[in-house]
Amino acid sequence: MYYEKDVARGVEGTFMWLMEEVGELSSALRGNDRENLAEEFADVIAWLATIANVAQIDLNAALVAKYGQGCPGCHRLVCECPDSEKP
Amino acid sequence: MYYEKDVARGVEGTFMWLMEEVGELSSALRGNDRENLAEEFADVIAWLATIANVAQIDLNAALVAKYGQGCPGCHRLVCECPDSEKP
Repeated sequence: MYYEKDVARGVEGTFMWLMEEVGELSSALRGNDRENLAEEFADVIAWLATIANVAQIDLNAALVAKYGQGCPGCHRLVCECPDSEKP
Repeated sequence: MYYEKDVARGVEGTFMWLMEEVGELSSALRGNDRENLAEEFADVIAWLATIANVAQIDLNAALVAKYGQGCPGCHRLVCECPDSEKP
C-alpha cells in the first residue's frame, strides 16, 4: 500500500514512525476507548510490516519459522517452559 | 501458547517484554544476520499478539477494520495520499 514511500524513507525513518505508533498503543492501553485501542494495534502491525517490506523480510515466513512448531523453547502448543525461560 | 502466563503478567509487564524485543529488532536491523532479523520480527509480532490477547483485542479484526479497504486516508490499494497525510 505504501511501498514506494516506505522505501524512499528507508528503515531508520520508518522505524521512527513505528515508535510513534508504539507510543500511541501504550497510551491507548491505559485508556478506555476500545475502538481506538484496536486501531493502534493495527497501526503498529502496519508499520512493522512496512519495515519488514523495506528490509525484505517475509513476516509470515518469519512467524512460521519461529512459532509454527509451537513454543520455541518446549515445542508445545501451550508453553510449559519455566517462566525464566520464556523465549 | 502463553496465554495463562501472559494474563498473570498483565498488560504492563507484557508491554515491557515487547519493548525489549523492539530493541532487539532495532539492533538486528543495523546488523547483517538475516536469520536473526527475521526472528526478531517474529518476536515483536508474538509479543504484540500477547498484549492483544491480554487486552482482549482481535488483531485480525483490527487490521481488517483499519486497512481492509485500502489506505485509510485515500481508500486506494496503493496509497496516493500526500506524504504529510500518511495515516
